[in-house]
Amino acid sequence: MARAAAEGEGRDGAAMILNAALEVFVRDGFHGTSIRTIAKEAGVSIALIYYHFPSKEEILRTLMLKVTNDLRDELVAARAAAGPNPVDQMAALVRAHVRLHTARQAESFVGNTELRSLGPDALAEAMAARDAVSALYKEVIAAGLADGSFRCEAPAEANLAILTMCTSVAGWYRQGGPRSPDDLAGIYVGFALAILGAGEG
Amino acid sequence: MARAAAEGEGRDGAAMILNAALEVFVRDGFHGTSIRTIAKEAGVSIALIYYHFPSKEEILRTLMLKVTNDLRDELVAARAAAGPNPVDQMAALVRAHVRLHTARQAESFVGNTELRSLGPDALAEAMAARDAVSALYKEVIAAGLADGSFRCEAPAEANLAILTMCTSVAGWYRQGGPRSPDDLAGIYVGFALAILGAGEG
Repeated sequence: MARAAAEGEGRDGAAMILNAALEVFVRDGFHGTSIRTIAKEAGVSIALIYYHFPSKEEILRTLMLKVTNDLRDELVAARAAAGPNPVDQMAALVRAHVRLHTARQAESFVGNTELRSLGPDALAEAMAARDAVSALYKEVIAAGLADGSFRCEAPAEANLAILTMCTSVAGWYRQGGPRSPDDLAGIYVGFALAILGAGEG
Repeated sequence: MARAAAEGEGRDGAAMILNAALEVFVRDGFHGTSIRTIAKEAGVSIALIYYHFPSKEEILRTLMLKVTNDLRDELVAARAAAGPNPVDQMAALVRAHVRLHTARQAESFVGNTELRSLGPDALAEAMAARDAVSALYKEVIAAGLADGSFRCEAPAEANLAILTMCTSVAGWYRQGGPRSPDDLAGIYVGFALAILGAGEG
């Protein structure tokens, strides 16, 4: 115990626990996972887990918020780097979204399957983080409709279709398949711009 | 027990158990659910459940195959009714796909989250059923590329994007929201045809 605490009390200890929990949640589901199983998978004591996280739900909450907030940060950075044109901004959002979902498939799976396992406060936080992601798309779609870059009669549904299509990549993408993450991201940019009616006018 | 068996041995008994299991799987996950909980939810005895299903996994397998096979049957019928034109056939597939996923959201959620909980044989069956759905889209896309109805450089990715976009409707659609299932289906037909580059030529 003293040894585990000395090894695992810092940030690395928390990260190690989160990685192990992610693996077990994907395999057994949140409800099928015990703190004991997470400890075994991480190779740490149960006491060390409780040192970092007051509950199993807090581990799940941390995992889910982290991936959604990282997604938001990457989307914000990608849009900022794309300049003022809504077509370029949408391409940057989709590219960053697809890339993250080819790289962090397990986190995306847990994020999409275990919302039910969060308590009301954590659920509200997770939904707010998702809304922040959706709002970025909404702003770019509105700008593109306003300046005539996009022609789309159902922008709210286009927003959801693009978001879910890009997120679903996490469910089927396989490393070593016929497309690199960058190739796939480029293909999805084309799909998203087609949905938004870019370049038809 | 004798009473429950008399009431529940037929087809209705199995359907009642499946409905109850669906509700509990959505709420607690497959691994977090016991046969006892399903029996309680269905208002039947544990013995009656084992009369219909040898195991909890067999309940999950039955639920998952049923929704995917029903989807395949509805897509086959929709395509057959659409006539020979690939654009009309694709519209029919997407319309039927979106409609089913606005109506059977719980089954779709379990289908997408609990593949991990199937044994190898049942998993192979479930994947084969999904492949049959995907193959319908593949045929129509190939026909539309061959006759010039579609222009798309990444048809395999377009197939997956359309499939996952239409399936994801189950995750966010709310009855009583701003769009009826038919309106939404029509909007998604437009998105799918845009992805496939229909009508650009």
